[in-house]
Amino acid sequence: MTTEKIPDIIIGRLPIYLRALQRLSDSGTQTTSSQELGGIVGISAAQIRKDISQFGEFGKQGTGYEIHYLIEKLRDILQVNRVWEVVIVGMGDIGHALAHYNGFANRGFHVSMVFDNDPKKIGDTAGDFEVFDSAHMIEKIKGHKIKVAMITVPATSAQSVADQLVKAGVKAILNYAPISLTAPEDVRVQYIDPVTHLQRMTYYL
Amino acid sequence: MTTEKIPDIIIGRLPIYLRALQRLSDSGTQTTSSQELGGIVGISAAQIRKDISQFGEFGKQGTGYEIHYLIEKLRDILQVNRVWEVVIVGMGDIGHALAHYNGFANRGFHVSMVFDNDPKKIGDTAGDFEVFDSAHMIEKIKGHKIKVAMITVPATSAQSVADQLVKAGVKAILNYAPISLTAPEDVRVQYIDPVTHLQRMTYYL
Repeated sequence: MTTEKIPDIIIGRLPIYLRALQRLSDSGTQTTSSQELGGIVGISAAQIRKDISQFGEFGKQGTGYEIHYLIEKLRDILQVNRVWEVVIVGMGDIGHALAHYNGFANRGFHVSMVFDNDPKKIGDTAGDFEVFDSAHMIEKIKGHKIKVAMITVPATSAQSVADQLVKAGVKAILNYAPISLTAPEDVRVQYIDPVTHLQRMTYYL
Repeated sequence: MTTEKIPDIIIGRLPIYLRALQRLSDSGTQTTSSQELGGIVGISAAQIRKDISQFGEFGKQGTGYEIHYLIEKLRDILQVNRVWEVVIVGMGDIGHALAHYNGFANRGFHVSMVFDNDPKKIGDTAGDFEVFDSAHMIEKIKGHKIKVAMITVPATSAQSVADQLVKAGVKAILNYAPISLTAPEDVRVQYIDPVTHLQRMTYYL
C-alpha cells in the first residue's frame, strides 16, 4: 500500500480536519475550501491541500471540497467508518470523566469496559459501566478481541498496565499517565499530558 | 532572538524530553545519551541531538548529557523555571479532574482559580478551590494578571469562554472542548481531544 509511507505527522492532522468538517456538516454546510477549513483549524490552505492530496483527488478547482464526500473518505482512511470497542483502565477522576464523555459517539469509538484494582471501586458503577477487577483484564479484553485502550492509572502503575494490555492483544493505547511507555513496535501509543501542552505554549509567552 | 525561528514542532518535543529527563533524575541518574533518551520517548537519537543542538551545545561527545544541567536549560527555554498561575473554566468531570490533578507541581504551573456559570456549582469546592461565578471571570483574571487558562466547558460554550479569556489578557489556552477555537495571533491555543488521538492510531490498525 502506498499509504504506508505517509508521514505520521500528516495522519495526525486528518482527525483535526475530520472534526472541523463534521462541525461544518452539522451546521448544514455542504461544500468548503481549503481556505475556509484552514481558517477553522489554524493550518495553512496550502498545507491542507497537500495533506489531503496524499490520498487522492478530493477537491475541484473552483468549487472546493464536497463536505459529505470528504468526511466519508477521511473516515475510510482513518478506519473510523466502524466502531472500535475501547476499555478504560483506572477509575480515578480522569477515568470517570472519560466513562461519562459523550464525545466518542459517531466518531468511531465506544467504551465497552472499565477496570480498576481498588476493591472499594470494583463492582461500583461509572457512567453506564460496572467497574471490573483489573485482575481479570487480560482474559476479558482477549475474549472481546478489544484492540483499543485508555490508561488513566497513576504513573507508577502505567507501564505494568500497558504490559498487560499488550498481552491481551491491545494495539492502540491512549495514555493519560505522565510517563512515556515502552511497547512493542506493532503497538501504537499516544499521550495526553496537559503539562506538555502548557509548556509548549509558555515558550512563546 | 534566533530562537524565534525554531519550528513549533521542535518546541513541541522539548516538554517530552524534559519529562523523561526529570524522571531519570528522580530515579537518581546523573547523565544520559541521546540513545537512552530516544529509547524512553520513542524518538530517534539523531532527531533528539538535532532538536537540542538548536539551542546550543549541551552534550559532550562520549559522555552525553549531564541531566541536571539539561533540565535547567530546557526549563529556561520553555520558561517553566517559574510558576505560571492557571485558571480552569468549566467544573464538569474534566474540570474536577484537573482541579485535583497533582501533576502540575514542579512543572511550572499552579491552578489558582476555577470558574463555572452553573448556580448549583458556584460557591462549591473543587479540590482546594472555591468555584467562582464565571460572570466575574474577566475582572478576576485581569486583577491577577493570569496568562494561562484551561477550557473544560461544552463545545457550544467554548468559543465564547475563549473570547472572554482573550479579553482578560490570557495568552495561552488549553482547550478540552471538542471544537477548534478562533483567537488573535498573539494567543496560543492547544487542544486535548482524546478522539483525535484515538483516530490517529486506528489508521494503523
